[in-house]
Amino acid sequence: MIAEIISIGDELLIGQVVNTNASWIAEQLNLAGIEVQQITTISDKKDHILKILDRAFLRSDIILITGGLGPTKDDITKQTLCEFFNTSLVFNNEAYQQIHELFKARGFKVTELNRQQAELPANCIPLKNKNGTAPGMWFNKDGKIFVSMPGVPFEMKPMITGQVIPRLKKFYKTGFIIHKTILTQGIGESFLTEIIADWEKNLPENFNLAYLPQPGIVRLRITAKGNNKEKLIQEINSFSGKLQEIIPDLIFGYEEDTLEEIIGRLLKEKNQTLSTAESCTGGYISHLITSVPGSSNYYIGSIIAYSNLIKESLLGVKNKTLIDNGAVSKQVVTEMALGVQQKFKTDYAIATSGIAGPDGGTEKKPVGTTWIAIATPDKKVITKKYLFGEHRGRNIRKAALTALNMLRKELIHL
Amino acid sequence: MIAEIISIGDELLIGQVVNTNASWIAEQLNLAGIEVQQITTISDKKDHILKILDRAFLRSDIILITGGLGPTKDDITKQTLCEFFNTSLVFNNEAYQQIHELFKARGFKVTELNRQQAELPANCIPLKNKNGTAPGMWFNKDGKIFVSMPGVPFEMKPMITGQVIPRLKKFYKTGFIIHKTILTQGIGESFLTEIIADWEKNLPENFNLAYLPQPGIVRLRITAKGNNKEKLIQEINSFSGKLQEIIPDLIFGYEEDTLEEIIGRLLKEKNQTLSTAESCTGGYISHLITSVPGSSNYYIGSIIAYSNLIKESLLGVKNKTLIDNGAVSKQVVTEMALGVQQKFKTDYAIATSGIAGPDGGTEKKPVGTTWIAIATPDKKVITKKYLFGEHRGRNIRKAALTALNMLRKELIHL
Repeated sequence: MIAEIISIGDELLIGQVVNTNASWIAEQLNLAGIEVQQITTISDKKDHILKILDRAFLRSDIILITGGLGPTKDDITKQTLCEFFNTSLVFNNEAYQQIHELFKARGFKVTELNRQQAELPANCIPLKNKNGTAPGMWFNKDGKIFVSMPGVPFEMKPMITGQVIPRLKKFYKTGFIIHKTILTQGIGESFLTEIIADWEKNLPENFNLAYLPQPGIVRLRITAKGNNKEKLIQEINSFSGKLQEIIPDLIFGYEEDTLEEIIGRLLKEKNQTLSTAESCTGGYISHLITSVPGSSNYYIGSIIAYSNLIKESLLGVKNKTLIDNGAVSKQVVTEMALGVQQKFKTDYAIATSGIAGPDGGTEKKPVGTTWIAIATPDKKVITKKYLFGEHRGRNIRKAALTALNMLRKELIHL
Repeated sequence: MIAEIISIGDELLIGQVVNTNASWIAEQLNLAGIEVQQITTISDKKDHILKILDRAFLRSDIILITGGLGPTKDDITKQTLCEFFNTSLVFNNEAYQQIHELFKARGFKVTELNRQQAELPANCIPLKNKNGTAPGMWFNKDGKIFVSMPGVPFEMKPMITGQVIPRLKKFYKTGFIIHKTILTQGIGESFLTEIIADWEKNLPENFNLAYLPQPGIVRLRITAKGNNKEKLIQEINSFSGKLQEIIPDLIFGYEEDTLEEIIGRLLKEKNQTLSTAESCTGGYISHLITSVPGSSNYYIGSIIAYSNLIKESLLGVKNKTLIDNGAVSKQVVTEMALGVQQKFKTDYAIATSGIAGPDGGTEKKPVGTTWIAIATPDKKVITKKYLFGEHRGRNIRKAALTALNMLRKELIHL
């Protein structure tokens, strides 16, 4: 079965409201093994809605519609559906009773406008709306299913999970779609694709691989379709396991994992602590780490040494080291990492020093040049130099994620 | 002119990524006086893309397409556009040079995959991609404009604002729509509405006011339409000037201003310096401040004192103060602010201490309780207690923005 989603609402077309409804519905359908091939957002205009319904009917088996069911005159979905199905509105007593009860519970009288919400197209099966006055509507036209729902997320969501999905599963015999998202850090999309080309070539026909890049991170999503759920899960895990063996340093997690959560989990397991000394990342590493609830259990704090004087006075970087090598150097990040590790009495420490840009670059050290150091419990310091890009915000983000991944590798002795 | 947006990407149809690109583009088009009648999200399937392009061509004047321009084989937008325009890919030297320069700057060699990104449909005008390897493409088919752009927001956005919108404005003759966005911090949408009700009532017929809330900030966007540009600008400035008189403490800036840029500008003007001592905000204030280019001129650094021991040893908070009042208290943030101000020898200092959540709340100090202090050059400390919400991420953001606005008010003696 192929589904599509039609979102009706002016607010979505002027950029005032992001269409989170559609992605949520798409996710629910996918989890139920139903593929979504199109999401269409349009305004409350009858002719336009009718055209989209016509085309959806031709190409999709399931058409889920949200929005335009309010009691005011700009909400025209119901009338439009009547025209599409060549039927008319009839008063539905069951739907009216639900509206009546809802109003009674809130201590209001049912107004004429709300009474009209119980008038539904003659050919629909009404779907109960627990949280509002507009009932949902289920239509079957020549074996294809149309469902119209309110656009208010709070009303639509329980309707989808409680009524629409169970009905669809019953109506169709659904296959299985299994996804697995693999998270990588430390390599761009085009280099990654070359490294894993052989692995990718061996993916079975019913597998699909998508590259989803973000600054500093590339997510790989494997999608597998079939009728045997257990077998699919086994296969998808086997292929991701093989990939893990090929690029263990690059894969830091799966699905919704974040590097800051993963290093937090590892530190908690080991009962070890962390501090940071940030120059070019200016507190962003601290921010990521402390965005994780409970991070105070392993994160002691940071010195943001934006000025060289602070690198000396608080982190104990030697004046000579700064003069001989410059602030963006292996020697300085090494002393920064050891300095904060000692001062904060932590097991591990991260230090960064770089030229985030847009200014401050030189021929020898162009914008994007970044040194990162990780100090370990045995006072060993691992350092590495990177050359990121020209964009300040992205350089900061890339440096922070790279530093967290360097720490992760140390924590698991990779 | 009527526009529509076509978003290409599997990740949008399985609910993994919310289509924020489309709403952002819709907003930009609306700001330029161009109506968006449809947003269509589809996957990387050639036949489907071709059908949608055919229909878009029939009903819209401007068709903006994002996604499917990556170097990997699942990205097929370029080939599909060739088929749609009945043309073929040709190597574009200008585009290649840009890719080459981007890679050179990062110290990489151009791979064959990336070289292929310089092959563009013969009938397009390439649009420069400052932040990536996939050029944008501008097509004119029978007086209708098609634009294809990368789906990565960071690459697409500057292309829209810097190239696409200016070109569209030139190509079509648009009427005058003037916008002014007023930025407020420190009050929720519903309270703000009440305070400015009288002012809002007096706005002329051709003015429209939109409330655009974000965590910690409410943006007010005035839109004025008309034929006399000078008069519109004069009127809009007059009304925003009146509002400035009503709520000078809440308005911190206009348009794309950020609090971190504004306090940076004020500090630079005064030739004064800043340091921070962060507990609950965990480095987020430092991150905001250092996200501004040139911030090293006035920002010396920070001590992120996540542990109480660090509050004592590095910030000089007295053990007795911590024991008597707890870490989240007026007394502790005061000592933190004075401590970092002295240690970093800065004119101003910010300190925060609070319960970001989700755990750590008590009956007396529930989650969201936050103390903020600002130390001034005459060693005066302004403190204030806030009660934000229950969401960790939002609490951190609200505390940081509130702290920056408190500093702003001190800097302008409000």
